[in-house]
Amino acid sequence: MASSEESLRKALAEKQSAVEAHGNAVRALKAAKASKPEIDAAIEALNSLKLEKSSIEKQLQAAVSGSDGDGALSREAFRQAAVNTLERRLFYIPSFKIYRGVAGLYDYGPPGCAVKSNVLAFWRQHFVLEENMLEVDCPCVTPEVVLKASGHVDKFTDLMVKDEKTGTCYRADHLLKDFCNEKLQKDLTISAEKAAELKHVLATLDDLSAEELGAKIKEYGITAPDTKNPLSDPYPFNLMFQTSIGPSGLSPGYMRPETAQGIFVNFKDLYYYNGNKLPFAAAQIGQAFRNEISPRQGLLRVREFTLAEIEHFVDPEDKSHPKYSEVVDLEFLMFPRGEQMSGQSAKKIRLGDAVSKGTVNNETLGYFIGRVYLFLTRLGIDKDRLRFRQHLANEMAHYAADCWDAEIECSYGWIECVGIADRSAYDLRAHSEHHVKNVFDEGQREGNIDCIGTNLDKSGVPLVAAEKFSEPREVEKLVIAPVKKELGLAFKGGQKNVVEALEAMNEKEALEMKAALESKGEVEFYVCTLGKNVPIKKNMVSISKEKKKEHQRVFTPSVIEPSFGIGRIIYCLFEHSFYTRPSKAGDEQLNVFRFPPLVAPIKCTVFPLVQNQQYEDVAKVISKSLTTAGISHKIDITGTSIGKRYARTDELGVPFAITVDSTKDVTIRERDSKLQVRVSVEEAALVVKSVTDGLRTWEDVWEKYPHHTSGSADD
Amino acid sequence: MASSEESLRKALAEKQSAVEAHGNAVRALKAAKASKPEIDAAIEALNSLKLEKSSIEKQLQAAVSGSDGDGALSREAFRQAAVNTLERRLFYIPSFKIYRGVAGLYDYGPPGCAVKSNVLAFWRQHFVLEENMLEVDCPCVTPEVVLKASGHVDKFTDLMVKDEKTGTCYRADHLLKDFCNEKLQKDLTISAEKAAELKHVLATLDDLSAEELGAKIKEYGITAPDTKNPLSDPYPFNLMFQTSIGPSGLSPGYMRPETAQGIFVNFKDLYYYNGNKLPFAAAQIGQAFRNEISPRQGLLRVREFTLAEIEHFVDPEDKSHPKYSEVVDLEFLMFPRGEQMSGQSAKKIRLGDAVSKGTVNNETLGYFIGRVYLFLTRLGIDKDRLRFRQHLANEMAHYAADCWDAEIECSYGWIECVGIADRSAYDLRAHSEHHVKNVFDEGQREGNIDCIGTNLDKSGVPLVAAEKFSEPREVEKLVIAPVKKELGLAFKGGQKNVVEALEAMNEKEALEMKAALESKGEVEFYVCTLGKNVPIKKNMVSISKEKKKEHQRVFTPSVIEPSFGIGRIIYCLFEHSFYTRPSKAGDEQLNVFRFPPLVAPIKCTVFPLVQNQQYEDVAKVISKSLTTAGISHKIDITGTSIGKRYARTDELGVPFAITVDSTKDVTIRERDSKLQVRVSVEEAALVVKSVTDGLRTWEDVWEKYPHHTSGSADD
Repeated sequence: MASSEESLRKALAEKQSAVEAHGNAVRALKAAKASKPEIDAAIEALNSLKLEKSSIEKQLQAAVSGSDGDGALSREAFRQAAVNTLERRLFYIPSFKIYRGVAGLYDYGPPGCAVKSNVLAFWRQHFVLEENMLEVDCPCVTPEVVLKASGHVDKFTDLMVKDEKTGTCYRADHLLKDFCNEKLQKDLTISAEKAAELKHVLATLDDLSAEELGAKIKEYGITAPDTKNPLSDPYPFNLMFQTSIGPSGLSPGYMRPETAQGIFVNFKDLYYYNGNKLPFAAAQIGQAFRNEISPRQGLLRVREFTLAEIEHFVDPEDKSHPKYSEVVDLEFLMFPRGEQMSGQSAKKIRLGDAVSKGTVNNETLGYFIGRVYLFLTRLGIDKDRLRFRQHLANEMAHYAADCWDAEIECSYGWIECVGIADRSAYDLRAHSEHHVKNVFDEGQREGNIDCIGTNLDKSGVPLVAAEKFSEPREVEKLVIAPVKKELGLAFKGGQKNVVEALEAMNEKEALEMKAALESKGEVEFYVCTLGKNVPIKKNMVSISKEKKKEHQRVFTPSVIEPSFGIGRIIYCLFEHSFYTRPSKAGDEQLNVFRFPPLVAPIKCTVFPLVQNQQYEDVAKVISKSLTTAGISHKIDITGTSIGKRYARTDELGVPFAITVDSTKDVTIRERDSKLQVRVSVEEAALVVKSVTDGLRTWEDVWEKYPHHTSGSADD
Repeated sequence: MASSEESLRKALAEKQSAVEAHGNAVRALKAAKASKPEIDAAIEALNSLKLEKSSIEKQLQAAVSGSDGDGALSREAFRQAAVNTLERRLFYIPSFKIYRGVAGLYDYGPPGCAVKSNVLAFWRQHFVLEENMLEVDCPCVTPEVVLKASGHVDKFTDLMVKDEKTGTCYRADHLLKDFCNEKLQKDLTISAEKAAELKHVLATLDDLSAEELGAKIKEYGITAPDTKNPLSDPYPFNLMFQTSIGPSGLSPGYMRPETAQGIFVNFKDLYYYNGNKLPFAAAQIGQAFRNEISPRQGLLRVREFTLAEIEHFVDPEDKSHPKYSEVVDLEFLMFPRGEQMSGQSAKKIRLGDAVSKGTVNNETLGYFIGRVYLFLTRLGIDKDRLRFRQHLANEMAHYAADCWDAEIECSYGWIECVGIADRSAYDLRAHSEHHVKNVFDEGQREGNIDCIGTNLDKSGVPLVAAEKFSEPREVEKLVIAPVKKELGLAFKGGQKNVVEALEAMNEKEALEMKAALESKGEVEFYVCTLGKNVPIKKNMVSISKEKKKEHQRVFTPSVIEPSFGIGRIIYCLFEHSFYTRPSKAGDEQLNVFRFPPLVAPIKCTVFPLVQNQQYEDVAKVISKSLTTAGISHKIDITGTSIGKRYARTDELGVPFAITVDSTKDVTIRERDSKLQVRVSVEEAALVVKSVTDGLRTWEDVWEKYPHHTSGSADD
């Protein structure tokens, strides 16, 4: 808890007591019929105490709702203005609206669809083409066996509670979160201790088990938001849409919850396609599905969305990146684990420093963080509202080496839009190993399955890479040999779990155990799948190092996974691009999206200044050359005033407007500056193309061409 | 039946009888111990009859299996070669292969994925951008109410039979089709009459009811192909993947079987977005799902696929198209209904003639047929193996004005790849009307739902357009007023069905009934939902025309729908692009895909001629300028011979290879001609870009730059 907030809560409580005490004193004076001057003085003191209390209240209100007291309100108003424009102009709309819609499903209308396709085209250019990635396209329908191996069938769940009378379902953690936030923000009377407790609940929300969540809900008396009815205990609900493949009804399948699995199961072929060489990256853009319990926050939490995922496969012993030097000098907001734990805020860090100091685990991870930064800012995301936040230890899967989320600030707060994780060898092993580490370890990041159970559905196909040695090498290999007979005698039915846990030890753990067994003869050993420590004696396991000649090193590659939630990025981009400015007459606020040409749904509009056959013919000539140049545009020959037509296209974020007011020259107007230049009819399309293609800037155009000072027509 | 085949079957039967008769005669002579010369002469005559029979057999074999007897075999061999290359180079692969795959699900690997994304980008350019279409992007998950209204829940089925012992499922029509084809092609002994019957079954396969299909299966003694077990009666299986939306389990949903519905339900918003003006088109690219009973033919019949659909909304009274003149002179293979019925084949027709003669129903439909022709041939589809086939009356839905399929010939035969249908007002009405025409009319084209039932789940939102009159007009309106009291007395519970059927009559039907009632007082009237005729008397319905003043004409727009099966187009493109040519040494056949640059997965490869730091540096410089120019390429610095490296990229259809053999000039080789020119290092990327962007042809390049006569390195 910020110290100022804590001291304000204490000060408020003290002032409240003082006001009460003084109030009693005043009443006592009145009852005792004290003199008027005496009573007046006491009342004045009381009033001044009340004023002080009210001032503290205001400060506290400001402290809990951000830097300024009106923050929440203005964020809400801003969002309303943006969303109204977005829905009215069909950037996006609730799906199946004429049937009253379905929560969590949205359509992109024409301008939204164009923005999306521009974002995806740039993603392909910036990642796939630039890095020579192997792009694949796999189906959404996925058989159960694949998602059993990946862990999704068992663990891709959210905890749900039901209204005990109506059966309406809610996400348990959302109810608890809303309760805590509401209390903290609206109830200024709670004690500093209570506030600290609620904040602790919020911070550890993702760590709570079903039982703990249920206990908190009971303790705080949380009821169903709509009916105030009591709630059931929380229980897990699998978020995958289930279906059945084929006519028999015997082959369960799911709509994929992420695109990554399609890449992992193809690793062997892709590695071969890449000439059996590492590193390489595969990429996939496609739909993913999550049957959210209670979707909310518009495009941010939906039941179907477009993911763009990269799986970069790399030798775990060499995570350098050949193009790392190209991003090393980038400087942007980073929010490392340490800063989060010590209550500091995100700060500008040079990427190279973050990597060299070990804040970012390795070069390749750093390289992708840098590339993601460039991708987002070139789309138009405000760099001051973009930060890379490192996962805390409790958020991260046990196997992950390091994870960073690109978070974008919008009216809903900081939103995770891209996850960049070093997932080590986990995913490939999950699909190939028969004897997989039986660790249940619930990771926190949504959408990551961070644990798997004992599983008979592994593919049995080794998903490994090999480094051939020029000469055979002598290597020392760790050999862990559990003595099954002794273990069986000691642990009976638990023997299998103990054996698997012993075999799954890494070198460091094994050597520590060996040393301990040699010195003490017995050691306590935690077996995850049993959920407890067991005593391991010297005769139960033999741990040794053996020398062998090897011609190659066979290993499971590490996976570094940047995963992009395209819809979330687009929504944040909408908010970062939206602004209003007064109309020329000053009587209304006009909406503008300041999309860069790269993203703008339509690059250009063509307007004849007045309705007139000659001008319309010129407009058609220009339109045709824009089509030839591949520039998406719109022609508007309505008789509406030019100011209104500009306003209409500003609201769609169209960067350039060509106005035809002669048969020789036309004007080109830039959306944000509203500046206009004059160019010939022949040049018009090419000028627009050169700027939208990024070959030159508007400033270059402004310098080169004669300026047009608009008449009364423009706003 | 082709007359030659028929006469051959007859001749064969006669010859067979003659052989048998003669055989008996020979045996009789032998038994009667006739003289050797007599017997020899008889045997010779028998042998010559056998030879004649065998010759007729060969002719018949040739006649049933196409123009040449080896056709089927060579088609099979060609397909094997193409598919082997496609799968080996990861153009596509069975999904989830390491788990032994799932029938009907395929992944596009890197080159296939690139081809697909090029095809879709060109589709967007050719249709959406060129026609200013409104592109939308709707979810795959669709609530039941939408697909109930569209008719898919009730009618999107195939007839299925089950192996009565193992429970294995088969498509009933496929089994019958396979049986007939097998008999016709392999059993030369069947009579001409039997052959004619089997051919009739094949021609009317799509018209058969479950009962008729079941009867044929019984009659022909068809059993389960794998086990020879008896089969169940056919019953309908809904092809949609079903799921459940949200956590309650109470909201059924489906994975959409087509993308079109997402457009129809948004008609009102899109019409508004277009300034309440017709015509306009909306478009959507996205995944669609069909839970096929038994997928086969590789990419041609799959359970998940990409559709690209256009819904062009037009005033039913004016189906002209402003850009029709741009396609009017195109000439290509068309296969009108008349030619199909009279056993002729497709012939070259000028599009303008087909429209002006009324063969193609209207200009807009003709315009899209022309645009589809241009789209497919520019992709690289062979125009001689592309035809536009008109639907026969029994294939077309009752409401459709006209339908044409773009069919592409590949090793599987003529495959429907694009459907272009004038669906009149059907779809918009289905979503908006409460009292919808209760006609069950099974259309034949797969994926078309051609009928809907009485339905309480309509949206109730009118999906209509309006034409405002400059002055109010007096119009005559048809009024059908069923007299419910009389109908109730006459039909009791069936009253509602009769009322709805009466109200659903079109003007012609209504006026005919009026005339009949006036002359005869009673008329037989077919009520679809009752499945029978009912007698309608004069007092049961009043039909009249009334005059009214109207300020606008409100109507449901007609929909012209070009619908593209992207996977099928891509597979046919693969086959049309594939060829083999001998290696230089002549010892092996090398595979080549002759993709046009527009489609090619990689536009260019860069090879240093020999392994050498200087050349590698030059290769990297060129690679960088290709990336800047947005040209997808691959750099290959392996020490493999240049001939092998060319062969490797020819197999991926890469049109250009830049070989670095100096630090100043390099060669550019064109894939199909194997011709090479010399250009400077600086120019190399731009030359490739200009050709791949279509700004100039390879012939232009060949004329401008010095030629390179390859040394021993090239093949």
